[in-house]
Amino acid sequence: MARLFHVPLSPFCRKVRLSLAEKKIEVELVEERYWEEDADFLRRNPAGKVPVLKLDGIMMAESGAICEYIEETRPDPVLIPQDPVARLEVRRLVSWFDDKFHHEVTSKLLYERVNKKVMGKGYPDSGNVKAGAKAIKYHLDYMTWLLDHRRWLAGDAMTLADFAAAAHLSCLDYISDVDWNRSDVVKDWYAKIKSRPAFRSILADQVSGFPPPRHYNDLDF
Amino acid sequence: MARLFHVPLSPFCRKVRLSLAEKKIEVELVEERYWEEDADFLRRNPAGKVPVLKLDGIMMAESGAICEYIEETRPDPVLIPQDPVARLEVRRLVSWFDDKFHHEVTSKLLYERVNKKVMGKGYPDSGNVKAGAKAIKYHLDYMTWLLDHRRWLAGDAMTLADFAAAAHLSCLDYISDVDWNRSDVVKDWYAKIKSRPAFRSILADQVSGFPPPRHYNDLDF
Repeated sequence: MARLFHVPLSPFCRKVRLSLAEKKIEVELVEERYWEEDADFLRRNPAGKVPVLKLDGIMMAESGAICEYIEETRPDPVLIPQDPVARLEVRRLVSWFDDKFHHEVTSKLLYERVNKKVMGKGYPDSGNVKAGAKAIKYHLDYMTWLLDHRRWLAGDAMTLADFAAAAHLSCLDYISDVDWNRSDVVKDWYAKIKSRPAFRSILADQVSGFPPPRHYNDLDF
Repeated sequence: MARLFHVPLSPFCRKVRLSLAEKKIEVELVEERYWEEDADFLRRNPAGKVPVLKLDGIMMAESGAICEYIEETRPDPVLIPQDPVARLEVRRLVSWFDDKFHHEVTSKLLYERVNKKVMGKGYPDSGNVKAGAKAIKYHLDYMTWLLDHRRWLAGDAMTLADFAAAAHLSCLDYISDVDWNRSDVVKDWYAKIKSRPAFRSILADQVSGFPPPRHYNDLDF
C-alpha cells in the first residue's frame, strides 16, 4: 500500500491526499515531525519536509512533482486536463495557491497560530497575523472573480487547482480563519469540494491542542 | 515573436529564458519593474510578478507552468524526459532550487544585496546575508553528491533541473556569491552549462549600478 509521511494541517500534504483519494489510491498516513530533522526522515527526503510519498516502490518528495506523477501514472479521473493551454491554467493556479497564497496567507496565519506552537517556536507574530487576515480577503475576491466566470477555478471541470486551493482553505478553516460570508460563489465552490468522498479523511483530522470549530466538518456550514 | 516580461537577475525568468533559448524559440525581452504594480502589468499577471511570457497568443504566468507548456508544445530538445520516474526526479529538483534553494539562499543573498536597493527598500539585513552565505555551502555539497553519482543533476541527460539550478547560481555568481572552489564537480557542471549557446544572453546581462565581476561571463572562470 502507498504510504504518506505528512502532517494533518499541511496544505501540500492535503493536496496530495486529495489527489490520491480522488483516484481511489489507498494510502497509509504516517505523521512525521519533520522539523525535528530525524536522520531516517532526512534519508527519505534530504529537503527535510513533508509530504513524502512511498508509491510504486519509490520514495517521492515535493508535492507538485508527486501530483504530476500520480496524474501520469493514474490518469483516471483526470485532475490535469490534456490540452496544453488548459494544463497551463491548472498549473498557474496551483502555483498561485502553493506560492503566492501560501506566502501571503497560509504562512502568516496557520504557521503563526499553529506550527509555531507545535514546534515550540514561541508565540504568533501579530503583524504577520494581521497581514494574513488582510491578504486572505484579496485572495477570496480573486477566487470570486474566477468562479463568476467558471464552474471550477481553472475551467469547467474540477482539477488539481481546486484541490490546491481547497487544501489551503481547509487548513485555515480548521482554525476559523476563513470568512465564508465574504463570497457566496466561493462558499458554494467549497461546499461542492467538501462533500466529495475524497475530502472525508481531511474533515476527520484532529490536531492535539487545536480542536477544530464545529463548522469545520459540517457539510452545511 | 514571443515576448518575455522579466528582470535580468530573476532565477525564475532565467529558467524560462534558458528553456526558450535551448529550444531555439526567439523571444523579445522586456524589462518589467513588477514591484511598481503598474495596472497594465497586473492585467497581464494578477499575481504581480515576473516572468510573464506572451507565446502562441497567450499571456502566461508562473515559471513552472510556463516551462511545462514550452516542453509540451516544443518537445525538441527534451528538457523533461518521458519516463514518469525520470520526470519526478527532474521536477523534484526544479522544486528544490525554486523553493528550498530560493528560500534559503537566493532570497537571502540576491534579494538583500540587489533587489532591496533596486526597489528602494533599504539596506541588506546582515543576518539574512550571513544565513544565505552559510546555506549555499550545504546546497553546493548536495549538488556535489548528486554530480558524483550522475552526469547531470537529475540523471545522465541535461534537463530543466540543470537550468533551474544554473538560473539561481548564475544570478548569485553575478554578485560573486558562489565559491566555485568548493567543488570541482559543481564547477565542471557549471562550465558545461555556461558554454551552451542558450546561456549567452544571460552572460550578457547588465544591471545598472551592479557591474558583474570579470569572471561572470568568462567561460574559463
